[in-house]
Amino acid sequence: MAVRVVRTRAELRAALAGAPRPLGLVTTLGALHEGHASLIERARTENATVLVTIFVNPTQFNEPADYERYPRTEVVDVELCARSGADLVFIPTVDQIYPAGSDTVVRVGALTEPLEGAARPGHFEGVTTVVAILFGLAGADRAYFGQKDAQQLLVIRRMTEDLAIGTDVVACPTLREADGLAMSSRNVLLTPQQRAAAPVLRRALSAARSQYDAGERDAEILRATMRMTLAAESLAAPEYVSCADPATLAELDRVNGPALLSMAVRFGAVRLIDNEPLP
Amino acid sequence: MAVRVVRTRAELRAALAGAPRPLGLVTTLGALHEGHASLIERARTENATVLVTIFVNPTQFNEPADYERYPRTEVVDVELCARSGADLVFIPTVDQIYPAGSDTVVRVGALTEPLEGAARPGHFEGVTTVVAILFGLAGADRAYFGQKDAQQLLVIRRMTEDLAIGTDVVACPTLREADGLAMSSRNVLLTPQQRAAAPVLRRALSAARSQYDAGERDAEILRATMRMTLAAESLAAPEYVSCADPATLAELDRVNGPALLSMAVRFGAVRLIDNEPLP
Repeated sequence: MAVRVVRTRAELRAALAGAPRPLGLVTTLGALHEGHASLIERARTENATVLVTIFVNPTQFNEPADYERYPRTEVVDVELCARSGADLVFIPTVDQIYPAGSDTVVRVGALTEPLEGAARPGHFEGVTTVVAILFGLAGADRAYFGQKDAQQLLVIRRMTEDLAIGTDVVACPTLREADGLAMSSRNVLLTPQQRAAAPVLRRALSAARSQYDAGERDAEILRATMRMTLAAESLAAPEYVSCADPATLAELDRVNGPALLSMAVRFGAVRLIDNEPLP
Repeated sequence: MAVRVVRTRAELRAALAGAPRPLGLVTTLGALHEGHASLIERARTENATVLVTIFVNPTQFNEPADYERYPRTEVVDVELCARSGADLVFIPTVDQIYPAGSDTVVRVGALTEPLEGAARPGHFEGVTTVVAILFGLAGADRAYFGQKDAQQLLVIRRMTEDLAIGTDVVACPTLREADGLAMSSRNVLLTPQQRAAAPVLRRALSAARSQYDAGERDAEILRATMRMTLAAESLAAPEYVSCADPATLAELDRVNGPALLSMAVRFGAVRLIDNEPLP
């Protein structure tokens, strides 16, 4: 299947004008992996046209160094889009997304405050703004996001509903490497030693889940279990561990209903996140 | 022509689903006057379906008392919509626009800082958020706004362009009473004495325009002329007078190109605005 690459708003608009509906959208920062492929494949099964966007959005990087070193792999990204069933790939420059004079932000409130929001000031405002722009440009019927970024998914759902944007937000499962590490574009930045240590996130989540499955309902005990598992890995520097209400992200005392276990852990300069919904 | 009133998001969606395109939108706070009628009539000539929204948006009122006393005249508003050619009137309650849990704002930067933005903290964030929601709900091809709210028009254009919202923003001329007072829903709140004094805004703008037409290009002299005209009316309490760049709203020293004369003036508790584009 031939994939078409477009780079400007005008080219995108022209390409979408005659495209069969429904339209499925997968927004990415590039450096695509099998997790992205699974989103594109899902979009392919549910839509007549599939659009992938590749844009390393500067406004969602709270650390300039993180933006600079974020992997850029356009040629293989386009190949992955093609083999996963995309029809169109939109790869804009920064000034196509933020033309001279552009000066509008979209901000979600309480849901953006804890966890990733607390650790990465400004991150979610960057995310919601660029996603609103991409949703505006695409006018898609459905957009596909991975569960790995659980808070991002909640925030984007909130924004889409609040602003009455006519795009259904579809959540898709996290894909993992054989050793349990959640797939992430940042994984390639790990040294071999860090890469070997990184599955500790999954082990920590699994340890807490096992306790939960065995009947433990004290959220602080579940958090302590995650912390202890992480502490055993000397290369892992935890930023937060959380056992929170999956709708509000408020930390729980007791797990009396659904909950979201989540964490952010640094390995040197590389920051990884993962999560596990309960039950 | 029969007009149909809808009150919920779901009713609006259903009514729009089969409506012929293009769709023209006029967003209002109600208390409709001939200025609104002219927007609806313009929309009628350019679209197959015309939607008017009537919603006194609490988040754009920086003063609770202003929100409370804002005129509510639904029955005659719907009659005006009908005779002006509207097909649909959407009159939502607050919880239809801001359902429980909604927590997203849309904010435009520099353009919202001077003039009305400085005088009314939070006003434009309320405007851009509700307009984004109404644009999302309506999915209109065109939306019609009056030039009387010149800064609002600039801010909404900025937002619409920045977020790639597929609605064309159409500017329409200010309508005036016979004595020059710009039509406004707030005019009915004036006492007879205040109403008699209110055309001073127009006189002040006209005095500055006459100077400009006679060759005056010193912006401070034009502002001083407006201030002096206002000062002669004892019931008028000016909040600001401005001679600004019409694209950025930055105050000018010299008028070397287009400019926007504008002002806000209080008559007791009632605040009126008006403007005059140069040339």
